[in-house]
Amino acid sequence: MSEPIRVKSSAMAVNDAFARKNRELFAGRGLAVVNMIGSPGCGKTSLLEALGRRMGKKLAVVTGDLRTTLDADRLTASGAQAVQIETGDACHLTAKMVGEALGTVDLDRAELLVIENVGNLVCPAAFDLGEAAKVAVLSVAEGDEKPVKYPTLFVRAGLLVITKTDLLPHVTFSVERVRADCAKLNSAMRVITTSVKAGEGIPELEAALLSAGTPSQ
Amino acid sequence: MSEPIRVKSSAMAVNDAFARKNRELFAGRGLAVVNMIGSPGCGKTSLLEALGRRMGKKLAVVTGDLRTTLDADRLTASGAQAVQIETGDACHLTAKMVGEALGTVDLDRAELLVIENVGNLVCPAAFDLGEAAKVAVLSVAEGDEKPVKYPTLFVRAGLLVITKTDLLPHVTFSVERVRADCAKLNSAMRVITTSVKAGEGIPELEAALLSAGTPSQ
Repeated sequence: MSEPIRVKSSAMAVNDAFARKNRELFAGRGLAVVNMIGSPGCGKTSLLEALGRRMGKKLAVVTGDLRTTLDADRLTASGAQAVQIETGDACHLTAKMVGEALGTVDLDRAELLVIENVGNLVCPAAFDLGEAAKVAVLSVAEGDEKPVKYPTLFVRAGLLVITKTDLLPHVTFSVERVRADCAKLNSAMRVITTSVKAGEGIPELEAALLSAGTPSQ
Repeated sequence: MSEPIRVKSSAMAVNDAFARKNRELFAGRGLAVVNMIGSPGCGKTSLLEALGRRMGKKLAVVTGDLRTTLDADRLTASGAQAVQIETGDACHLTAKMVGEALGTVDLDRAELLVIENVGNLVCPAAFDLGEAAKVAVLSVAEGDEKPVKYPTLFVRAGLLVITKTDLLPHVTFSVERVRADCAKLNSAMRVITTSVKAGEGIPELEAALLSAGTPSQ
């Protein structure tokens, strides 16, 4: 299987060149940028709607889905700037897709850019988009063993956002187990808990994303 | 980008050859076989545990995860036959991986083989493993817009299993919307509802998997 590996490396090199270009653009503007990754339905868009209601146009979102502009429509209604990338059958965003989408965002007004990746806990983790940090999102409905079963993302993320804590009384999920497993996988990762439905953890989310999205000196 | 497409086609041709070999093996034994696909945490393993408690060794499961043998351990404890494939960073099972894993399953005792794919709503849908049907799994906690946002799987699946219906009072999810959207995407797809926690829909699941897993004449 040497051929697929060679080509994969070549595609990665192309992606990395576009990621460097994005990163230079973000640094030149002092823009905080995160790459948000989680399963379909883990609550990424709901988190960003809640942030949009707080931050308005200071929040810019580039959001990826296989089909539809449902997410961008929701985010625009929340007050945020939002642009949708329809990936077709592609299971992740690439740095080139993100760079092209940025042309339709007013970056002068933005303080925080969130790249909301395609709902997928695996493939998006391998692609640098030019962000300062990857942010993992995990809902309590998914189960607390996910970090050890899907470490690809969790070893790379600077922040884990646990969502839907309002469902904790109805599911089997230990926040402490997740904290302990994540600490073993990646001691640099912060963990915060949120519930959009209960209105909990949203100011903390804003602060944590701005912090994670700012490159360390 | 012609090179990656060519190599992708070549990898697909290799996969399809192994899938044909698996399919011949299954047909020769009259074994019902499905390829179960859904997001991380949608409840695939819990469904199969419930089936294992009913079917015992008549249920064989080949289960894929990036890391750990947690799922196979749970399934073996339920009474089913189970073998784990650790895929490393691979986001889906291939027909070759499945063929190799079958060597450790007692197919003489099995009536139903479920290939529980890596938790991922996107990539696994593109790979034929030799199954008679793909089965999509969607939990009510994930949201009812998932079929239209992630059609890759839903246009190919013979059966959709909606899980965790015990959470319906606590989330926003319309089973009717999902049924209507799925009927538009794929009129051949059956839809059933289940709750392992409430013990609902498990006999129907067994019948539906045996039916979907049997090649049509």
